[in-house]
Amino acid sequence: MRTRELGESPVVIVEEGSIGLVETKYYTFASPPNKFQMDNGLELGPITVAYETYGELNEARDNVLLVEHALTASAHAAGKHSEDDQYPGWWDVMIGPGRAYDTDKYFVVCSNILGSCYGTTGPSSINPETDKPYGMTFPLVTVRDMVRVQKELMDHLGVNKIKSVIGGSMGGMQAIEWALLYPDMVESIALVASGAVSNPQSIAIHKVGIRAILDDPNFNGGNYYGDEVPAKGLAIARMIGHITYLHHNWLWEKFGRAHSDPENMKLKLGSKFDIENYLEYQGTKFVDRFDANSYIYIMRAIDLYDAAEGYESLKKSFERIKCKKVFVCSFTSDWLFPTYQSEEIVRALKFSNVEVEYQEIESPYGHDSFLLEYKELTQYIKQFFATL
Amino acid sequence: MRTRELGESPVVIVEEGSIGLVETKYYTFASPPNKFQMDNGLELGPITVAYETYGELNEARDNVLLVEHALTASAHAAGKHSEDDQYPGWWDVMIGPGRAYDTDKYFVVCSNILGSCYGTTGPSSINPETDKPYGMTFPLVTVRDMVRVQKELMDHLGVNKIKSVIGGSMGGMQAIEWALLYPDMVESIALVASGAVSNPQSIAIHKVGIRAILDDPNFNGGNYYGDEVPAKGLAIARMIGHITYLHHNWLWEKFGRAHSDPENMKLKLGSKFDIENYLEYQGTKFVDRFDANSYIYIMRAIDLYDAAEGYESLKKSFERIKCKKVFVCSFTSDWLFPTYQSEEIVRALKFSNVEVEYQEIESPYGHDSFLLEYKELTQYIKQFFATL
Repeated sequence: MRTRELGESPVVIVEEGSIGLVETKYYTFASPPNKFQMDNGLELGPITVAYETYGELNEARDNVLLVEHALTASAHAAGKHSEDDQYPGWWDVMIGPGRAYDTDKYFVVCSNILGSCYGTTGPSSINPETDKPYGMTFPLVTVRDMVRVQKELMDHLGVNKIKSVIGGSMGGMQAIEWALLYPDMVESIALVASGAVSNPQSIAIHKVGIRAILDDPNFNGGNYYGDEVPAKGLAIARMIGHITYLHHNWLWEKFGRAHSDPENMKLKLGSKFDIENYLEYQGTKFVDRFDANSYIYIMRAIDLYDAAEGYESLKKSFERIKCKKVFVCSFTSDWLFPTYQSEEIVRALKFSNVEVEYQEIESPYGHDSFLLEYKELTQYIKQFFATL
Repeated sequence: MRTRELGESPVVIVEEGSIGLVETKYYTFASPPNKFQMDNGLELGPITVAYETYGELNEARDNVLLVEHALTASAHAAGKHSEDDQYPGWWDVMIGPGRAYDTDKYFVVCSNILGSCYGTTGPSSINPETDKPYGMTFPLVTVRDMVRVQKELMDHLGVNKIKSVIGGSMGGMQAIEWALLYPDMVESIALVASGAVSNPQSIAIHKVGIRAILDDPNFNGGNYYGDEVPAKGLAIARMIGHITYLHHNWLWEKFGRAHSDPENMKLKLGSKFDIENYLEYQGTKFVDRFDANSYIYIMRAIDLYDAAEGYESLKKSFERIKCKKVFVCSFTSDWLFPTYQSEEIVRALKFSNVEVEYQEIESPYGHDSFLLEYKELTQYIKQFFATL
């Protein structure tokens, strides 16, 4: 398996069967005065959604797969934007002719989430009322908002039936929300390394990251555009995140206690263990590619997510779901979205009489497994789609 | 069980059987030109050690228990400094007449570690050569240095035989090092929630904390004394630490997803989950009581610790140990020093033909268990001492 060596998120690279060149498209809606009403009651508009599609929408318009991305990914899920691109999209290995999300059969859509910084409207977008970036005047975003924006995109694409909404990590939360908000539209959902709720440890970890960004002197209340960005705070936030994507045992395997400057380890604080260099590299790389405000907003959206919100229990909430079938998958070494969170979903679905297929995958890679264990995942997803 | 409600580290409070009023004493040695030679070859002196003693040294001088503290504690392990003190010493519940470290029988010594900020020489101490605080000119400290400084104190107290060296967390690392460096002096060691080596996840977590402190504009290369301290960076470092002291499930139990301002949770970033308020409180409190440079130095000492250093294996290293018996204890929910690290010690000791008693305690509290599960621990320690 070849992956980005030190990339921000692991991307498995398999040349054969890749979809080839793709392009990002944009759809704008909710132009004033017809603004989009947010989950919190505030209004926002216009909203642009960046999205990509792979494969063809069939005549019956019933072959749609909607792929939901996690915290820091983009609409660019598969293929390359140009021949020169070093890396394909973030879930390339799952999407293409003959792959799990088979573009010979399906019309695959992936859009960048609301609040992000990869083409969809977010805090770094220009507020037309002020001609300046929104910054922290951008309304707080929820997973429900992300999904409702995607619904607008589906309407625009003429899609009113979705074969499956598939998502890993926060992408799974969006998939759940799709099934809850638009039960008649969603035939199935597939949840990978996800949860129906953000757990308190995850909130705690996000908290430290958010604090680090807010405390960076360059943050300036979110008004850092065109100036020095809060690079140090953002790097710290990302470093903490990365620790939670990998498993304790995998850190032993991958880094152990190796260090590059044994002569000076006890002499100089600047002499580092390999794991430290890795984290610093991850932090620095991330600053180049992601907006600090977006990172805060999306972490917060995850914190706020609770699929049982407004209901007395998850079981009660799930009674809205009309999926034919749900696929749930967790990974043994994932401690950010541990297996118990998937099992909780499975139990609640069964109580709502939704057919559910659950598989835990034995993997050493921690939460990152959902991007790395593509071989097993492909088999399970293919089998799942075949039963729909 | 009564503990400090929101204190920095949990201190169990049991009035009955407390040792009463105690005082911190000081011993200074290594005055120039006879400086102390550090593990890294650098020299340091003079060195003052803050220490407390409880109970009486018997005539045979063979009733000594040496208690080793963890990252941010002090020599003040038991009793109170004045009747007005709100809280007793950090391990009070284990030390006193009739308690695990029974002061009717034993002469209990606890000293503040080298590099700390509670009376023993550390980065915040005045360098007599410059009349300014050492700051980051203080030499990097290792666990071995801490122990060798304690050996000087033992010599000063006329102690050449130690019944048991007992330590939790990094305190256990010091206990191991005592058994390795001074095998003829140490009759037994007791290791609680500890390890023979710092694991890569722990190094990673420390890394982020160290980065946060170094990046705080007030840090100023460690020269912040008499000025604004790097409060934000230090608070972030402490918040990360606290996440690792508690267990995932315990966070559900203790905080869940409770929040105090439901009206505004989706409207304002400043509306917080209870777990966030807890972490912020912990971070802020810590800044008032601890020195940022000391925190960096001691985290680094933990990172650097490897009881097998210089030997081909832990087993080989442990062949130096001449203890009659060793007690090792871990806690099911501790993910900072997980049980496998205690088991590794147990195995290596057995291969060195050292008698070892191992007990894993079922506890929900995570790494903090070593301060909270005093009832079970008391029984095991008492039984262990009885067999010596």
